[in-house]
Amino acid sequence: MAAKNPTACLLVIGNEVLSGRTRDANIQFLAVGLGERGIPLREVRVIPDVPETIINTVNEVRAKFDYVFTTGGIGPTHDDITSECVAAAFGVPWEPHPIAWPRMEAAYKPGEFNAARQRMATMPRGSALIENTISVAPGFQIGNVYVMAGVPRIMQSMWEWLSPRLEGGQKIEMRTVHAMGLPEGIIAEDLGAVQKRYPDLDIGSYPFYRASGNGVALVAKGPDAAMAEAAIAEITQMIVHHGKVPLQGEPPDV
Amino acid sequence: MAAKNPTACLLVIGNEVLSGRTRDANIQFLAVGLGERGIPLREVRVIPDVPETIINTVNEVRAKFDYVFTTGGIGPTHDDITSECVAAAFGVPWEPHPIAWPRMEAAYKPGEFNAARQRMATMPRGSALIENTISVAPGFQIGNVYVMAGVPRIMQSMWEWLSPRLEGGQKIEMRTVHAMGLPEGIIAEDLGAVQKRYPDLDIGSYPFYRASGNGVALVAKGPDAAMAEAAIAEITQMIVHHGKVPLQGEPPDV
Repeated sequence: MAAKNPTACLLVIGNEVLSGRTRDANIQFLAVGLGERGIPLREVRVIPDVPETIINTVNEVRAKFDYVFTTGGIGPTHDDITSECVAAAFGVPWEPHPIAWPRMEAAYKPGEFNAARQRMATMPRGSALIENTISVAPGFQIGNVYVMAGVPRIMQSMWEWLSPRLEGGQKIEMRTVHAMGLPEGIIAEDLGAVQKRYPDLDIGSYPFYRASGNGVALVAKGPDAAMAEAAIAEITQMIVHHGKVPLQGEPPDV
Repeated sequence: MAAKNPTACLLVIGNEVLSGRTRDANIQFLAVGLGERGIPLREVRVIPDVPETIINTVNEVRAKFDYVFTTGGIGPTHDDITSECVAAAFGVPWEPHPIAWPRMEAAYKPGEFNAARQRMATMPRGSALIENTISVAPGFQIGNVYVMAGVPRIMQSMWEWLSPRLEGGQKIEMRTVHAMGLPEGIIAEDLGAVQKRYPDLDIGSYPFYRASGNGVALVAKGPDAAMAEAAIAEITQMIVHHGKVPLQGEPPDV
């Protein structure tokens, strides 16, 4: 067995996801990115722009997971309060960052580095910057908490910079086989037996309903690719045994 | 002021969202639906198919919020453990449901109501059913916890049945104005002043970056539509004052 992989929690901070105004695009992106770095995402919380909630949640999850990532709430407006809340959670001053402040000041025309923009250069004492190529405002890291933008393309640029700098574990391998017209209730028992034979894998069953027909995606995940492939080979035999045609990879209309 | 609106928490239960295999489609749907019923969504947690995590989380959030909704983990396979975990959270037996069991038994051909499918008719003692028109397997409610399917179209059918039966509050009204080419940093101060003048509203600022240009969406939310409209009128004047053209409704390429 490989050494235990580090774990991650993601905090999506922002009223716009809770109101339904915005469909979150960051959870899936980071889930995939973290899996590739061998840092499985174990929990996501979407929380509002409420100081007490942010502070308490940051403190709860940073004690519980190896890594905490946050998205949202680091812009210049009154509802962007993630940065000062993270400072409060760590019990450190929230102050001009020695690198970010002069850099941002130089990036704006004289007089345009106003109070609102200065907030984006104000960070918990001791923070290290998380760089990006889209916006002049960086994210930051303090302890095991990584604070990133909520706008997807800025967040993705921060992740691109950050990802190779994280200490990861073994990559989580995922193998999938699909079967059209095979109800979950028919294969559930056999599938449970496969899960029992491969306790180090995570075997999942996900039904789908599409115009072209209904089916089920059967997934094996774990750090050992050969083991995931062996489990999928057994599941593929199960599908054939039930008189259906196994489809490797994605079904035609995904 | 209206009576205080009831609050909601959503638990998205399933490894497939945490691994990035699936992009969740239920958060936004329920966020909008709950807002329309005047039950603002205050927190979302995405948690894995791990019994201890599900049980502890259900107990934590059902004490904290008026309503708890769950999606996922009520199918027939070994990783569908939401139902038995909710029974454990409430400390009640997990047993054949007096309505769901005979109904599902009758829906299958003789011999096809197997052990896996029987799991879908097994629920916490005292549960009331949540009906749907897609699948023969219902969801259920116990206390303030509403357990629904994870497959979006089944969940949506359950919500359609459930929504008018919930005791809601005043609908949350949302008004929006957009401005192209207006940086948040320029309007942040004025916007904060609007928020201060309307403490009963939730004023949000959401930058967007699109091929057709960058801009910002400015949103006012609250139970009082006239108040939200008044705030948006002030914000619209701000946009004009900064030399930009306010766009009502959605920008062209959303």
